[in-house]
Amino acid sequence: MLTANQIHDQINTYISGSFLVHAPEGLYAPIDYVLSMGGKRIRPVLMLMAYNLYKEDVSAALAPATGIEIFHNYTLLHDDLMDRADMRRGKKTVHKEWNDNTAILSGDAMLVLAYQYIAKAPSAHLKEILDLFSMTALEVCEGQQYDVDFEHWNNVTEQDYLEMIRLKTAVLLAAGLKMGAIQGGALQQDADLLYDFGINIGQAFQLKDDFLDVYGDPAVFGKNIGGDILCNKKTYMMIKALELSDDTQKAELDKWMRTTTFNPEDKISAVVNIYNEIGIKTRCENKMREYYDNAMCGLEKVSVEKEKKNELTNLVHDLMCRKN
Amino acid sequence: MLTANQIHDQINTYISGSFLVHAPEGLYAPIDYVLSMGGKRIRPVLMLMAYNLYKEDVSAALAPATGIEIFHNYTLLHDDLMDRADMRRGKKTVHKEWNDNTAILSGDAMLVLAYQYIAKAPSAHLKEILDLFSMTALEVCEGQQYDVDFEHWNNVTEQDYLEMIRLKTAVLLAAGLKMGAIQGGALQQDADLLYDFGINIGQAFQLKDDFLDVYGDPAVFGKNIGGDILCNKKTYMMIKALELSDDTQKAELDKWMRTTTFNPEDKISAVVNIYNEIGIKTRCENKMREYYDNAMCGLEKVSVEKEKKNELTNLVHDLMCRKN
Repeated sequence: MLTANQIHDQINTYISGSFLVHAPEGLYAPIDYVLSMGGKRIRPVLMLMAYNLYKEDVSAALAPATGIEIFHNYTLLHDDLMDRADMRRGKKTVHKEWNDNTAILSGDAMLVLAYQYIAKAPSAHLKEILDLFSMTALEVCEGQQYDVDFEHWNNVTEQDYLEMIRLKTAVLLAAGLKMGAIQGGALQQDADLLYDFGINIGQAFQLKDDFLDVYGDPAVFGKNIGGDILCNKKTYMMIKALELSDDTQKAELDKWMRTTTFNPEDKISAVVNIYNEIGIKTRCENKMREYYDNAMCGLEKVSVEKEKKNELTNLVHDLMCRKN
Repeated sequence: MLTANQIHDQINTYISGSFLVHAPEGLYAPIDYVLSMGGKRIRPVLMLMAYNLYKEDVSAALAPATGIEIFHNYTLLHDDLMDRADMRRGKKTVHKEWNDNTAILSGDAMLVLAYQYIAKAPSAHLKEILDLFSMTALEVCEGQQYDVDFEHWNNVTEQDYLEMIRLKTAVLLAAGLKMGAIQGGALQQDADLLYDFGINIGQAFQLKDDFLDVYGDPAVFGKNIGGDILCNKKTYMMIKALELSDDTQKAELDKWMRTTTFNPEDKISAVVNIYNEIGIKTRCENKMREYYDNAMCGLEKVSVEKEKKNELTNLVHDLMCRKN
């Protein structure tokens, strides 16, 4: 068994060996820029860990794992463009460093590259893996569309939100794990269990992201606290707050969401104050815990020795306890 | 053997049966809008005609042919966005009918859909077809990047231009033909000959597009004559004119390309006048003829009976004689 760190190193080495900028530079330099930024590489690491449950040497799965990472980075690139985000991982986003058209076209090329790398999977499983990946990629687009739509919806329910983050975030983690299992030769039942495990940890991770945006430690959280509150993002916490607030609280939340000129700190502290009155922090923690427990419960059923799953268990535990 | 029209009808029927708008509508309605616009469907028709050289019933290849058409329409969608084009086939472009973000995301989903349909090719040839398609899709991105780059290059040569249109236009026609041949069970040599045939007709078609923009009949040409001249597009004709012009002609071309306020008709007639003095019309016709002859010469070498190739020969001939 390899440790998560060993797998992380292998995937990073493979990725940095794969991309040498070639002509036209206007197309490939932004791709190299994005893929060199690093990041946690969670998706390929999870895929390789799932593979590693069944096969010792992960080198045959490095190419499809890279494909998943390229795909993830392509979604960030296009999402940042659509959200007009200026920074990503401490560096300028592609449309800021270059321009909008470069972001569109380089992102497009990355989606093709993702398929090119995924198609390097062993041919025995190619069709199954490809179909899973395409279905997932479409779901990610659907999730992004719902995320955009929700800005204009007045009544986004908890259910709507959880379905949106399932599509936008969880399915890719799940598909990566399942693709790893399939390539490793897992039985269908194990592959499906690992998919469900991925859905549960994906939901938990996204809730954790939302949670840290409000309750993170400013000293270690990479971004400013309260960003989601300032832009009226309908997160799990905001949706629950709107649902559970009394008339006074609801009126105040509505007021802050409608007000266009305000002192950012005032808005954040007013909203967090209401969250605290309603007990949103605990509710969000409980929801995360629910997904986390479901994930662990499913992982137990995967038919490999318990010790082999330790790395996966530890990694997910660390990610759930992360501060940034 | 099926006629080109029969194949065209089959692909249209297949496409219209494939796309029922589903949720979220914001993602799928623009895709349906683009694919319902019709157009010549040249790429899937050519793919199926190549397939039909080897197999009578083309129904097994309808899905990958649809994939190629979806891909082509996705490139138009994103290119129109990058070029800020308002109209396409007499209808508003997606970013005008909806907005920029919709154009980005629906285009992204179309690229995934293209792969989904191409992956329905018979599994015996799946890997080969996918690799060819991914290589081609990347080349199309490269061609688009060069097209953008050329706007800022001062010395685009004939060679540069021909390579750009090879990437941007010809490789997709070529890949479609080769994918059709491979699925039909053609030998490698035939598949390669059909690829080269596609490159040659692709180059000829693009030159024809450029040609019609200047020498088309305003009564039948769908767009305004002289559009490329007005926006200083470095077409084959402009590049040759700059290369072959004497000092006086060159100075006048340069003047018109630098001038930002002018009467459109004056600019068009002045530039066309220089084209006529230099004999650009004949040069462009000769170049098209050269590619056309190369195409036909290669097609002759394909090892199927001559009569089977008649439909392909006639279609290409018609496309070369087209007036719009």
